[in-house]
Amino acid sequence: MGGSLVRLIAERADEIAARTGVRLVVTRVAVRDTARDRDLPLDASVLTDDTAAVVTADDVDLVVEVVGGIDPALELTSAALEAGRPVVSANKELLAAHGAELFELADRCGVDLLFEAAVAGGIPLVRPLRESLVGEDVFRVVGIINGTTNYILTKMTEEGWGYDEALAEAQALGYAEADPTADVEGFDAGAKAAIIASIAFGVGVRAADVHHEGISGLTADDIATARRLGYQLKLLAVAERFDDGTVAVRVHPAMVPDAHPLAAVRDSFNAVFVEGSAVGDLMFYGRGAGGLPTGSAVLGDVIDAAVNLAKGTHASLGSFGPARFRPQSELSSAFYLAVEVVDRPGVLANVAGVFGAHDVSIRSMEQVEAADAAPDADPAARLVFITHVAREADVQATLEEFRSLDVVRSVDSVIRVVGAG
Amino acid sequence: MGGSLVRLIAERADEIAARTGVRLVVTRVAVRDTARDRDLPLDASVLTDDTAAVVTADDVDLVVEVVGGIDPALELTSAALEAGRPVVSANKELLAAHGAELFELADRCGVDLLFEAAVAGGIPLVRPLRESLVGEDVFRVVGIINGTTNYILTKMTEEGWGYDEALAEAQALGYAEADPTADVEGFDAGAKAAIIASIAFGVGVRAADVHHEGISGLTADDIATARRLGYQLKLLAVAERFDDGTVAVRVHPAMVPDAHPLAAVRDSFNAVFVEGSAVGDLMFYGRGAGGLPTGSAVLGDVIDAAVNLAKGTHASLGSFGPARFRPQSELSSAFYLAVEVVDRPGVLANVAGVFGAHDVSIRSMEQVEAADAAPDADPAARLVFITHVAREADVQATLEEFRSLDVVRSVDSVIRVVGAG
Repeated sequence: MGGSLVRLIAERADEIAARTGVRLVVTRVAVRDTARDRDLPLDASVLTDDTAAVVTADDVDLVVEVVGGIDPALELTSAALEAGRPVVSANKELLAAHGAELFELADRCGVDLLFEAAVAGGIPLVRPLRESLVGEDVFRVVGIINGTTNYILTKMTEEGWGYDEALAEAQALGYAEADPTADVEGFDAGAKAAIIASIAFGVGVRAADVHHEGISGLTADDIATARRLGYQLKLLAVAERFDDGTVAVRVHPAMVPDAHPLAAVRDSFNAVFVEGSAVGDLMFYGRGAGGLPTGSAVLGDVIDAAVNLAKGTHASLGSFGPARFRPQSELSSAFYLAVEVVDRPGVLANVAGVFGAHDVSIRSMEQVEAADAAPDADPAARLVFITHVAREADVQATLEEFRSLDVVRSVDSVIRVVGAG
Repeated sequence: MGGSLVRLIAERADEIAARTGVRLVVTRVAVRDTARDRDLPLDASVLTDDTAAVVTADDVDLVVEVVGGIDPALELTSAALEAGRPVVSANKELLAAHGAELFELADRCGVDLLFEAAVAGGIPLVRPLRESLVGEDVFRVVGIINGTTNYILTKMTEEGWGYDEALAEAQALGYAEADPTADVEGFDAGAKAAIIASIAFGVGVRAADVHHEGISGLTADDIATARRLGYQLKLLAVAERFDDGTVAVRVHPAMVPDAHPLAAVRDSFNAVFVEGSAVGDLMFYGRGAGGLPTGSAVLGDVIDAAVNLAKGTHASLGSFGPARFRPQSELSSAFYLAVEVVDRPGVLANVAGVFGAHDVSIRSMEQVEAADAAPDADPAARLVFITHVAREADVQATLEEFRSLDVVRSVDSVIRVVGAG
């Protein structure tokens, strides 16, 4: 990504100078190995392995941090801000762990800390949230913010591939790492969701505050049932602010109705759906990763910070008070539930009664073919329910009671339904 | 919309002050009739019918212009800028006719002229284009930027309604005016497209420079054929910049493939699809009209301009050189063409030969049932073609030759295909 940025600056510096009056010059580039041939439009003399010296060097007016991780990025970013250098960061781990303190430090030092690229790659999202929507009462943000998992789910949906096959293809294409945990278990999306929630709601949310469930447990059968019922399976990041000021941020697979704009987000694309009381529904769509899209987002921030620097001003990030979190059990959602039951009279009434006893109301139910049972077993039926919006605690209590019932063989799938209006 | 803004400011002023340090107070509101009961959270003393005095009054720091039209909005806006008052405008007609000169005036006066609400209602688009993407090589913007026509086309597509029926329903819902010309013939979208092209490409494009074709000629049959072939019919605004620096901006109906993100934009929603060399494909989706969404966009601009005013700075709009336009005949597009021919051997070869003679290459062809012919007429066949991307001049020459052929009864539909990759 650093390479893409250097190339973009070389290609676009004249046009940028003509449009904004600011000329961008790459004066220093800190790298691990200065001897490596990079094929970049840079004089070799700008390369250095003394990273700490770069961020406070006299000929550096602005620092771009694309190091990733927390150590030494935290130290470098803090040092740059304290030395009065604006910082443009693409580092989601750092901002999701230390965002609030860094924003405060930047404000105290009177310089910009911009991070468009850290959240949704090339998609302009942070600036619209911070500026266009600063007066808006944003109460929910729902995003597809991990391209790897969206690619895997798209292939499972459209090509009928299994999870392992789709993951292997994502790895072959370079979308997924050899160890795909950060993507498929929702850690990557969780870090981004923490930053989005902080900006959207003006409170400090860290990656550790985000509940996450991944996609590795989803089956081809879940996908097929979702399609048949008119839904798409997506890994969603959901950030909510409630009337009492509490917030909740979680990442989990969800069924999204076909008519919802997020359902049409395919392959490795990202999209963030924003709901505000006055503005209504908004969606921002684009490439959430990749050197060029991410480089483009960094470049936009660099220009913004450079123009501000030239004017002697900076964009205040405001203060981020501590977040009060609503407990997971108190959150609400519609649910898709697949339950295998013994196929005999009265079982459906039995199961429906359990829902009712826990205040969970059923929106739709259908009986589908059960998986092959052993020849000597009782005949089985598979029941698929979509509930109305219900409290998580009530749904969990319902499932617990199911598991204790003789007539319920297994609870096979529990997937939230989001965006069903 | 003015009323929505006043209510939003009353509701959100405390939160805005806490987040930004700026407190918004409505000190004067110019109206036609000060006696009318408006049920707004305003002291009656702020109402006045002396519009000219408001824009330069001592207790007015910032002017919001939601008058619409050119006269007296041009004079008022100019007077406010010249008096050092930032202006937030929702006036697309004004900016599409006099944008470049007003941007220059604002820069010369050192104040903001912001106009997010003039382009796509509540969707943050102007700010992302001007700021996030200022370093990006944006070469094409394709938008659904008229909610009325998108509502009409959605109903024709999903409910099978005819054009007249859908228009009547849009009028009943208040989406369309009694005289729907501005919407259905593409004038409204044309004005917005002129502003978008100016911002995206940094050149002055006026409404009068935009070629437009409306939707009133589209038939239920066009819609049905589009659906069957895997397309959605949309009224698109297409702004392009070519490698030689020329630009073209037009509004016309188009067939969009089902898998394209714009195809999923339903009802009165708007969306703008932006293509850049580094960032790739982006889309911005939301409510393009309505008091609250538009009021939210105005409010975002008001806060931005107020914060800038407090800091003694403003966002420069840069210079807008004159646009060089590529002639319509030199533009390229894929086309959907429906032609009724005499059904006899050799006709298809004859028609295919005409395409070939004009360098128009056929992507797909199918023969569909012809409309009922008179009993004594020769048997007729309806041929539906989708071409590869071809020059407009070549397609027009092909159509002209068709019309001169004895075997071609009529050319029934000529619709561009956009976004087919």
